[in-house]
Amino acid sequence: MVPHLTTALTGPLLELEKHFLDNACAIERWMRTQWQEHLPPFYGSTDLRNSGFKLAPVDLNLFPGGFNNLNDAFLPLCVQAAQAAIERICVGARSILLVPENHTRNQFYLQNVAKLVSILRLTGLEVRLGSLLPEITEPTVVELANGATLTLEPLIRNGRRLGVKDFDPCAVLLNNDLSAGIPALMKDLHDQWVIPPVHAGWHARRKSNHAAAYDRVTRDFGEAIGIDPWRINPAFDTCSGLDFHARTGEQELADKVSKMLGEIRTKYQEYGVTDEPFVVVKADAGTYGMGVMTVKDASELIGLNRKQRNKMSVVKEGLEVHDVIIQEGVHTFETLNGAVAEPVVYMMDHYVVGGFYRVHTQRGRDENLNAPGMHFEPLAFEAPCSLPDCNQSPDAPPNRFYAYGVVARLALLAASVEIEETEPLLLEEATA
Amino acid sequence: MVPHLTTALTGPLLELEKHFLDNACAIERWMRTQWQEHLPPFYGSTDLRNSGFKLAPVDLNLFPGGFNNLNDAFLPLCVQAAQAAIERICVGARSILLVPENHTRNQFYLQNVAKLVSILRLTGLEVRLGSLLPEITEPTVVELANGATLTLEPLIRNGRRLGVKDFDPCAVLLNNDLSAGIPALMKDLHDQWVIPPVHAGWHARRKSNHAAAYDRVTRDFGEAIGIDPWRINPAFDTCSGLDFHARTGEQELADKVSKMLGEIRTKYQEYGVTDEPFVVVKADAGTYGMGVMTVKDASELIGLNRKQRNKMSVVKEGLEVHDVIIQEGVHTFETLNGAVAEPVVYMMDHYVVGGFYRVHTQRGRDENLNAPGMHFEPLAFEAPCSLPDCNQSPDAPPNRFYAYGVVARLALLAASVEIEETEPLLLEEATA
Repeated sequence: MVPHLTTALTGPLLELEKHFLDNACAIERWMRTQWQEHLPPFYGSTDLRNSGFKLAPVDLNLFPGGFNNLNDAFLPLCVQAAQAAIERICVGARSILLVPENHTRNQFYLQNVAKLVSILRLTGLEVRLGSLLPEITEPTVVELANGATLTLEPLIRNGRRLGVKDFDPCAVLLNNDLSAGIPALMKDLHDQWVIPPVHAGWHARRKSNHAAAYDRVTRDFGEAIGIDPWRINPAFDTCSGLDFHARTGEQELADKVSKMLGEIRTKYQEYGVTDEPFVVVKADAGTYGMGVMTVKDASELIGLNRKQRNKMSVVKEGLEVHDVIIQEGVHTFETLNGAVAEPVVYMMDHYVVGGFYRVHTQRGRDENLNAPGMHFEPLAFEAPCSLPDCNQSPDAPPNRFYAYGVVARLALLAASVEIEETEPLLLEEATA
Repeated sequence: MVPHLTTALTGPLLELEKHFLDNACAIERWMRTQWQEHLPPFYGSTDLRNSGFKLAPVDLNLFPGGFNNLNDAFLPLCVQAAQAAIERICVGARSILLVPENHTRNQFYLQNVAKLVSILRLTGLEVRLGSLLPEITEPTVVELANGATLTLEPLIRNGRRLGVKDFDPCAVLLNNDLSAGIPALMKDLHDQWVIPPVHAGWHARRKSNHAAAYDRVTRDFGEAIGIDPWRINPAFDTCSGLDFHARTGEQELADKVSKMLGEIRTKYQEYGVTDEPFVVVKADAGTYGMGVMTVKDASELIGLNRKQRNKMSVVKEGLEVHDVIIQEGVHTFETLNGAVAEPVVYMMDHYVVGGFYRVHTQRGRDENLNAPGMHFEPLAFEAPCSLPDCNQSPDAPPNRFYAYGVVARLALLAASVEIEETEPLLLEEATA
């Protein structure tokens, strides 16, 4: 079962997918050479939007939380890719500490943690779970809906190493995005591999850095493969020094939004797209779909009511929003039984290991499907993303999945570049 | 459907499989560090024998010919592993020439070639087939039973590069074992990647070199993991200067066989095994199960009749046999509906990508199932070899497959060591 692509404009999409298919050799070789230059993140996931005329990532998560939603048939792919990642990052490791998010009541998230634990164990690592929750003061068994259990243990700091009782792991794998900053316990762990590096956490990460890196990656890719990068790259801009409560910067934001809407309109005309352009304004440091709004006309930003201002001004962990990214909106034209379906692609090392659709029945195609408390039905990809088939139509499932995988890997590559460029030591040197 | 392990002595086997399960972390870490020291072959397959008390490889093929027998569900694993191999060996490659065996009438082999072509294409390489057959003087389309076709093209030598018409590939992948020696066309291809290196062909390869390398690999492994290497390693010896026709060396061979049978008997007593020991005498340079005989008593080697001497004295491509390897026989105690079943494990890079059983209804458990003209029914492994499950019995399919994968990877590692040690330049330096 694969969502239906419903758009008046299937032409340009088939054109994009066909171009990917026809140039698969050049694409794969380009990818191979890029990964010689950049260290792939241990894992990552990306939310894609498929508008028919544009297939683009709108988010790249370095702490993916939905491994439980992948097709079980692809578990061996995950294990093989995780082995590659461990060889690349921490070849001598025999044990690893997984630090999850603090969502101990979210059954879906706990199943993601359980799946990650089993993948890591299958690569041959001893795995334990260390929790940042203050209430975890002793080993605590959490029951999962499927009858399995997880044991969360309090973290123990020992010199420049982190562990749990009687467990001094070689490596620490974060599945916690550090939105609230780097806890004291996790600072300066110089004697262990910390994966991903802590500066990739959301306390420091900025969507705009990622967008800038993706912009360069897609420009290079477009040149190498012969496509207009706009077809896979949402335009972006930033706006700083905002205070939504005090209504500071409102006009500047509206002006920038207006400019971008105009530019999108021009591109739509070039490609004969008749849909209504929109942009998404997001907190530059935000996550979990908090601090996000969809705008079709810049005037919507002038005189926001209290509720709207509250919504935009605070993100996860209560952090105030002063900087936003303005991102070109990409319509979602994929639907399943009338419900909007948004693909999410999962990667380990530089391999695509599966994915799923977020299928949502209550939202429109230009709205954010990853918002707080949002319910979605996951629909696992039925086929892997690595088996394009030239004998089938460009939009046949293996080929649509291949196109997802290409764009997802570009987003992952941008994340690698972003992590390199935001490395604190490097930044210190640059400003010294 | 998984073959049944029928032996009075399941105890020791479960003990071995249980030991692998209990020590999976140590095993995987040991493997990871070994592969830091040695370059994995592009691909390889190994024939295993499972006697209940012993699980051991009896052959390691560097030109595997049964990719068509693998479970289709594992194709993505093959693609991912092949990507890893290409990154490791020839990262910049955009095109590859596959040189198959000359078996153009063997539908099974042709399907193997077709599967290899599709795996290579899915990694993003342009692929063409160059044939060593003199009668292929122009592009020749060969039809496969499943309706697909392959195009064989005559090889064209150009300076230090090999190709076919209008195709100058970056790399040459051999699926031809070069039993007849290195064809002039293929000598000194210094401007291309040749995979595997030509000295891994059977014109130069010796089973005894592989066995010696495997001996060392399993000794190290046994020490690291705490098992008696005999449990996974068939004893071997060599005998040179034989002439079966002239009956030269007969007595020396018989004496060596007698000695080995005595040693096996001692080991059987140690482990309480009541089965009858046997050895297999094989041409050291042979392949395809030619020049092979099973011996239970050394006296069988004295006064071989003409037919037996003929059988032993010539192998593939009509080469005469002067050197043999004497290998401890390993009983096959795996059966499917009463038929003997022998596992064959397939690997690409250092990953296990699947396997199948050779199921044969007419042969005994101590006979060679890979003999000329032998018919077998392939039964693809139903599960991957990378998902051991401690919650199931040590002999449950995922755990038996895991054990196969461990032993197969040891054989592959031995092949890496063997290829390194037999590198002509290295040998020249050693003798200089």
